[in-house]
Amino acid sequence: MARERLIDIARTVYRSYGFAPIDTPALEYAEVLLGKGGEESDKQVFRFTDQGERDVALRFDLTVPLARFAAQYIQELGTPFRRYHIGPVWRGERPARGRFREFLQCDFDTIGTLSNTADIETLFVINDLLEKIGIERFTIRVNNRRVLNGLLEKCGLQEHAVTILRSLDKLDKIGRDAVLQEMQEKGGIPAAGASQVLDMAQLKGRPDEILLALDGMLQGSQTGQLGLENLRELFACVGQCGWPADRVLLDVSIARGLDYYTGTIYETILGDLPGIGSVCSGGRYDNLAELFTSQQLPGVGASLGLDRMLAALEELGGTAKATTPAPVLVTMLDAAGIPAYLQMGRNLRRAGIGTEVYPEAKNIGRQMKYADKRGFRFCLIAGADEFAAGTWQIRDLQQGAQVSVAAAEVPGYLVQALTPAATSGT
Amino acid sequence: MARERLIDIARTVYRSYGFAPIDTPALEYAEVLLGKGGEESDKQVFRFTDQGERDVALRFDLTVPLARFAAQYIQELGTPFRRYHIGPVWRGERPARGRFREFLQCDFDTIGTLSNTADIETLFVINDLLEKIGIERFTIRVNNRRVLNGLLEKCGLQEHAVTILRSLDKLDKIGRDAVLQEMQEKGGIPAAGASQVLDMAQLKGRPDEILLALDGMLQGSQTGQLGLENLRELFACVGQCGWPADRVLLDVSIARGLDYYTGTIYETILGDLPGIGSVCSGGRYDNLAELFTSQQLPGVGASLGLDRMLAALEELGGTAKATTPAPVLVTMLDAAGIPAYLQMGRNLRRAGIGTEVYPEAKNIGRQMKYADKRGFRFCLIAGADEFAAGTWQIRDLQQGAQVSVAAAEVPGYLVQALTPAATSGT
Repeated sequence: MARERLIDIARTVYRSYGFAPIDTPALEYAEVLLGKGGEESDKQVFRFTDQGERDVALRFDLTVPLARFAAQYIQELGTPFRRYHIGPVWRGERPARGRFREFLQCDFDTIGTLSNTADIETLFVINDLLEKIGIERFTIRVNNRRVLNGLLEKCGLQEHAVTILRSLDKLDKIGRDAVLQEMQEKGGIPAAGASQVLDMAQLKGRPDEILLALDGMLQGSQTGQLGLENLRELFACVGQCGWPADRVLLDVSIARGLDYYTGTIYETILGDLPGIGSVCSGGRYDNLAELFTSQQLPGVGASLGLDRMLAALEELGGTAKATTPAPVLVTMLDAAGIPAYLQMGRNLRRAGIGTEVYPEAKNIGRQMKYADKRGFRFCLIAGADEFAAGTWQIRDLQQGAQVSVAAAEVPGYLVQALTPAATSGT
Repeated sequence: MARERLIDIARTVYRSYGFAPIDTPALEYAEVLLGKGGEESDKQVFRFTDQGERDVALRFDLTVPLARFAAQYIQELGTPFRRYHIGPVWRGERPARGRFREFLQCDFDTIGTLSNTADIETLFVINDLLEKIGIERFTIRVNNRRVLNGLLEKCGLQEHAVTILRSLDKLDKIGRDAVLQEMQEKGGIPAAGASQVLDMAQLKGRPDEILLALDGMLQGSQTGQLGLENLRELFACVGQCGWPADRVLLDVSIARGLDYYTGTIYETILGDLPGIGSVCSGGRYDNLAELFTSQQLPGVGASLGLDRMLAALEELGGTAKATTPAPVLVTMLDAAGIPAYLQMGRNLRRAGIGTEVYPEAKNIGRQMKYADKRGFRFCLIAGADEFAAGTWQIRDLQQGAQVSVAAAEVPGYLVQALTPAATSGT
């Protein structure tokens, strides 16, 4: 239920921005998937030959299927094309805490526009997602690949960009010294250059201060200035939002491991659980579908790390304990009253109240135990006496109180009783 | 979007009865799946050896995974256990209209009770599903395997039950003569016996009339009388519901192909499209998990045929044409106004109105064309003049009308304008 709640929030937020749902098959032709995510990813692909001798594989992300889908249908769909996709992906790797061979991805992307407006809205979507999930303290770290490339250009290190950015991406995990060492040993970067890159990447301060410092460093770099301009626009809009000062920060050290990002990049860190890593990441890419079509399809998007977010919520105590989606249990004392029990269930559902009817006239103690275990909010009780009197006992399982209410008034009573906590049971 | 709408309705209805969501992995160990659905099903299973040399397969339904799951966790879960499961399944068969190698199943089941109350509520769920989807004319055909077995017993044909019921299941498709022929040729049933079975199965009339006729035929058959008693209880409750007379019918010819059904069985036929077949089917089974556990786990449930229902809705013209989930598009005339366009988007979303912001200051004609194509309900338009005046143009794309509204009043105006059709765009 906690997982479904997150999916529901993601869908609601995505839809509120005009992203439409798509789904693609779990199985793609192997040639569609292989060679798209690098050697490591190819090794992890679940691949086999099916009954029709087709070489097929289970998708390892939702981006490659989107690229295939967009290449195939973009003429028909038109641009900008905004889609979200929530579905399982598979990777044959060693499972660990919060890492599974099958896991859910929860992506949204705006395809077919180079406009920075889409980048800014991507940030808004991430913010709304976290707010709606109920996270109070979080920071979206933003950077721009063009700024990084501009800085490397100024250091004369642009040819080593891929190596440097991959190392830089590990800064949080392995620390400055290890990154320096890796850049020198694996990347063959001179010590002075590596150190200079890290100094720039570790610029600290308010976004406007960092933007100013970067402007100085990036004089004469066209690429770098383009990236800076996008960041300036983004922070100008953030300034209008009235968010806490640490809601969106400019962090020049963020590189994201993936090679295909070319512009804005995003990471989202929980204020109360930074160690769990980014719970929502993404970025802008110049050409999504170049392997499938000659049409250029730029885009920007991000992905909610649903399983990681769930793990975080569990650790922070933010998941509900009830295992029933219905707040009311109609207990059964007397099998002769089955039509009445069922009818009460129907009346309550018609009043919008989720209601389970206990299916057997078992010992009431056992039914109450069941109600506790599932986490129902109210129990309805009626036996021969109540049927004769036309009343029902309503037991409030949170308060422990019990009242007698006329049959016809039960739905109204419960609607009112559940109103302050209307969302808790649904 | 049409598919997601159906999923949403199914979830809402299931939850309103206290069914909780579960999910299981798409990949199971092959030994869990094989030999569970018969020879034909084994042949259709997508099976392979993974990176860890594990013999794995993609699930072909959600019932076998439920059996495995229940066997593993039922002690912890407790009974009755009501779950729904909406997820893809895979079958390596030849695709046809409305039949795909990957398709979505949408199951709900009540596990761990023999009570007929659960059977009656299963019927209620099916009814609510179809009503909420917006189907006005439909018939739920009900039967009971015990009644069928009782009838076969009375004809001395109980040993041929499996063969006879499988043939009977084809009655709708291939007709009486072909079923008779198949029973005789494949099943070795004497012509007189086959004919007698078909006469009984083709009993026509109101449920109470058929129940009475069956009561006469089933005198002395304990099995048959048990089945009859369940059907009587069910129809007594149906009588309270105030449904159209043809909403629930007793159809003795319904057998369902699956061997594991043992009690009530259900099929749902659309009044305006009977030829498409049953859109929601299910039944009661005595022992779900016998292959995995020694604990007896009886249950009852059904499955919404989501893809078939979608095909039916398309044919009946019941799917919406809009391809955006947001009713409002904020167009962009002037790139200098980007912060204002984005802010309007935020204000509208805060008022509960799904809003897309067009990301580029392109020719307005092109943006209006985009709005038409996607099916937005309203467009917002503002350029330098409007910004100076503090107003926005609101164009109603259904009515063709356009009004000028003060910026601060736009959300209120649109909330009101969208209220009568609040559900159409969300």
